[in-house]
Amino acid sequence: MKTLIIISHPEVDQSSSQQFLIQSISDTMRTNVTVHILEKTYPDGKIDSAYEQALLKKHDRILFQFPFYWYSSPPLLKKWQDEVLTEHFAFGYRGDKLAGKELGLVLSIGIAEKEYQTGGQEGYSISELTKPYQALARKTKMSFIRPLSIFQFAYQSEQEKRRLLVRYQQYVTLKRPDSLKTREKWMIEELKTTAIDTLKMDNAEFIINQTIDQIEDNRMELDELRMHIDNFHD
Amino acid sequence: MKTLIIISHPEVDQSSSQQFLIQSISDTMRTNVTVHILEKTYPDGKIDSAYEQALLKKHDRILFQFPFYWYSSPPLLKKWQDEVLTEHFAFGYRGDKLAGKELGLVLSIGIAEKEYQTGGQEGYSISELTKPYQALARKTKMSFIRPLSIFQFAYQSEQEKRRLLVRYQQYVTLKRPDSLKTREKWMIEELKTTAIDTLKMDNAEFIINQTIDQIEDNRMELDELRMHIDNFHD
Repeated sequence: MKTLIIISHPEVDQSSSQQFLIQSISDTMRTNVTVHILEKTYPDGKIDSAYEQALLKKHDRILFQFPFYWYSSPPLLKKWQDEVLTEHFAFGYRGDKLAGKELGLVLSIGIAEKEYQTGGQEGYSISELTKPYQALARKTKMSFIRPLSIFQFAYQSEQEKRRLLVRYQQYVTLKRPDSLKTREKWMIEELKTTAIDTLKMDNAEFIINQTIDQIEDNRMELDELRMHIDNFHD
Repeated sequence: MKTLIIISHPEVDQSSSQQFLIQSISDTMRTNVTVHILEKTYPDGKIDSAYEQALLKKHDRILFQFPFYWYSSPPLLKKWQDEVLTEHFAFGYRGDKLAGKELGLVLSIGIAEKEYQTGGQEGYSISELTKPYQALARKTKMSFIRPLSIFQFAYQSEQEKRRLLVRYQQYVTLKRPDSLKTREKWMIEELKTTAIDTLKMDNAEFIINQTIDQIEDNRMELDELRMHIDNFHD
């Protein structure tokens, strides 16, 4: 599966959250992941639609990654939508070039999650505010995958950021459906391919193997529990 | 009441619907109505935020008028939102400069109205797709007035276009609440101030007076009917 991350941010170099996300995509990952920053590729704002359409065709999962200013994307991504997702390519007669692909959103949001609900400071949920993107996926026959919303990155602890890193990498590379089981498999695969010498501790190999064992033991226990519950219901 | 119409369209001169709407704002109306085309004022895309904020302060009703491409505005209006509606001006500490004003949308839409519902081609209603603007109004403490959606202008008959013209002028100038009674008052006022010599018929004055009488007679009859109904319920 190939993933295209389309990033739009008016000042991407100054954005600590965008830099954190971009740098988390390792060279190994980049075999199947393309990071595409619109403001870097098109500093004058003139978009090469033919190039962009060719790029889209080569990928299976398309992610829009941007700061959620005024409940939408920065202007350059909107320009990209209007100029690249044209009739006969993305919709309309013979416009099936995106059909069957996945569309996801990676939103960085400055306000706390709890405010995005009725009675909260923002008053509307992310599900309500992203309707235009859901409608876009629908019209272009893409599957809309649930957004990855990153609330208040600046206030996150080191541990929260590490968790975010894993969540983000899974969002970019994990095959659907996104379940605990597939996330476990993904994690074991990642641990097995981790270059031991990149880790700053003596017993790195031991800890990695211990962790893999732990995940596998947990899985066996969970499967057993499920079996018992299923039997109980029969 | 002063109204600011902020228009955004990548090719406004080529747009027959935008030209139709812009030309319907007469010189007399322009005493209280400012027509502001972003792509004309800022052909290089560089927005003068201080000027825009001063302009906003001078008006009571703010309208965003644009083609509803990918369920949102063209990029320049989004850029305007991000750069003009800043913290401490539009929201946040002392950010009350728009509080109490009205925000409306004039959307030109290429697809038929019936498609904007569940099961229709577009699948979502205009009320759902415009949530980001509703949230913007909420955050800036403006009253959101129901959008004026113009579906398939190109296919409209002459009579439909004449009706649209009146609806649009009322959307721009009519004081809330928008009821039949206020629309009647508005229409009588407009008819009374129409320069007779601009009409291409011999008996223009007679027809205008007849029309005013008709509206006033209807109103009396409606008021009487309401009185009877109210008595009946008592």
